[in-house]
Amino acid sequence: MVDRIDSKSTESAPLVVVGSVAFDNVITPHGSKEGILGGAASYCSFAASYFTQPRMVGVIGNDFGDEYLNRLKYRDIDLEGLQKDESGPTFFWKGKYHENFNRRDTLDIQLNVFEKFRPDLPKSYLDSQFVLLGNIHPALQMHVLDQLQGNPFVLADTIDLWIEIERKALLELIKRVSLFVINDSEAEELTEETNIILAGNKLRELGPETVIIKKGEHGAILFHEDGLFALPAYPVTELRDPTGAGDSFAGALIGRLASRNRTDFSAIKDAILYGTCAASLTVEAFGCDRLESAGASAISERVDELKKLISID
Amino acid sequence: MVDRIDSKSTESAPLVVVGSVAFDNVITPHGSKEGILGGAASYCSFAASYFTQPRMVGVIGNDFGDEYLNRLKYRDIDLEGLQKDESGPTFFWKGKYHENFNRRDTLDIQLNVFEKFRPDLPKSYLDSQFVLLGNIHPALQMHVLDQLQGNPFVLADTIDLWIEIERKALLELIKRVSLFVINDSEAEELTEETNIILAGNKLRELGPETVIIKKGEHGAILFHEDGLFALPAYPVTELRDPTGAGDSFAGALIGRLASRNRTDFSAIKDAILYGTCAASLTVEAFGCDRLESAGASAISERVDELKKLISID
Repeated sequence: MVDRIDSKSTESAPLVVVGSVAFDNVITPHGSKEGILGGAASYCSFAASYFTQPRMVGVIGNDFGDEYLNRLKYRDIDLEGLQKDESGPTFFWKGKYHENFNRRDTLDIQLNVFEKFRPDLPKSYLDSQFVLLGNIHPALQMHVLDQLQGNPFVLADTIDLWIEIERKALLELIKRVSLFVINDSEAEELTEETNIILAGNKLRELGPETVIIKKGEHGAILFHEDGLFALPAYPVTELRDPTGAGDSFAGALIGRLASRNRTDFSAIKDAILYGTCAASLTVEAFGCDRLESAGASAISERVDELKKLISID
Repeated sequence: MVDRIDSKSTESAPLVVVGSVAFDNVITPHGSKEGILGGAASYCSFAASYFTQPRMVGVIGNDFGDEYLNRLKYRDIDLEGLQKDESGPTFFWKGKYHENFNRRDTLDIQLNVFEKFRPDLPKSYLDSQFVLLGNIHPALQMHVLDQLQGNPFVLADTIDLWIEIERKALLELIKRVSLFVINDSEAEELTEETNIILAGNKLRELGPETVIIKKGEHGAILFHEDGLFALPAYPVTELRDPTGAGDSFAGALIGRLASRNRTDFSAIKDAILYGTCAASLTVEAFGCDRLESAGASAISERVDELKKLISID
């Protein structure tokens, strides 16, 4: 049995996670690594797996060996929705972080089997009550929503690329999103509002009941009809590779919500603490390594530390 | 009787505030204003006056009319230590903020009577138990400490200029400082450490028992032997003029501590809430205007809001 936080909970509601699966080559000021298991679906699923069993939807190519599949299986991730396309290799990304990690360049990108990816869900996934739409084309995110039964709680993430080239599709999508997660520069780009509080308010007017603006090392702000909530980041001192931090945040956040089958203001605040701490582990090593191996207790311990960090008593 | 927060407190210990008094011309993306009452000592004293009666030390020139003095007197600030030098005009600064307020240029600076300023304290100030050393030359800050009796609690602020041209004097000074307040870019410059957590730890090794690193709109982090405390900024939506935000923060912070005669971890956390809210008022108008006129209740209300903003319950 894989270790989970609150694993005795019987409230858990099914969660589906959709996104890219990738091999990454990452260059940082402190070193570089090749052939890293990456992609939004991988980070999201690993993070969510500390709370519930995520149903993973993505595509892998003919170079995705059992050693990688076993890492996902080891965390008890449901792989029925993970498509294997033998016609080519897995999505590939190569990026370089500059000094202080505050800027990154994409050096190479090869879509490979991801180019023809269509996120068709297995029948067994259609009753998912929680959905994480990782960063993929908004039309593909929409396709996932069109298949699902009932009225699931939908968390969607995006990146600047879709804001720039698919703004209309993105705006259509987020009307159907429950919790929209976006970083500060993307929020500014999408709303044309430089004040982060006003940007968050504007995003809520676009449809989502709840919005989270991520500020990296400066934490995150939650915009909800019941109020605002601001949380600093976990104080990381060993930053090694920021790739996947946002995906880990989203995965742990919705994993926590699904495991409690709660979506109220208080539950979302609690889940942001877990998302923040999962992300803090991810960035301490290349790829998913630290997140995968940390264990549920490492996340719980950081949540306790984070609560102390923000306590005024 | 001027309005103060917890004005019935009988615990208050005497506080002296030292810094520049200036006339500022400020240009922002939303407008500009000339002849603004400014300078660190002004902002610090106005902010502190919501908690206790600050003893103000600075110098004004022959252009500093009664209308300005009356504004300070109206907030019951003790002006015995405010020197008047008839030989020339008051310190003058002209600055311009760029779009998003994330960069400012000094367009003109005229030291005037500030050039020969020596912060000699009136005898009645020598028993001050709390000291705010606003941003002036470290040798002048040291001169203040040399005059004081006993073992006062010393808060010192600085700017990049002194780190660049008076590093040695600054390092000597901060050995004698109880609470060192510095912004993030200055902390990086002084410690040569880009990670803010490590920078804060390094600063404590230089002498001060307690360090606060200010991150502007991203809040502040407190480094104390009992632990860390991270606080987001108050969510300002009407940014008009950031000048004096740091001074207002420091003034309210030490004013609150002096009014309670407490310097423990919990008291400093509480005081940071008040500093943050005082600063949030300052930036909503040019100069000291909003801070001066807001009233004690406006600060208290914001502190309540800020507590809600960070509450996980």
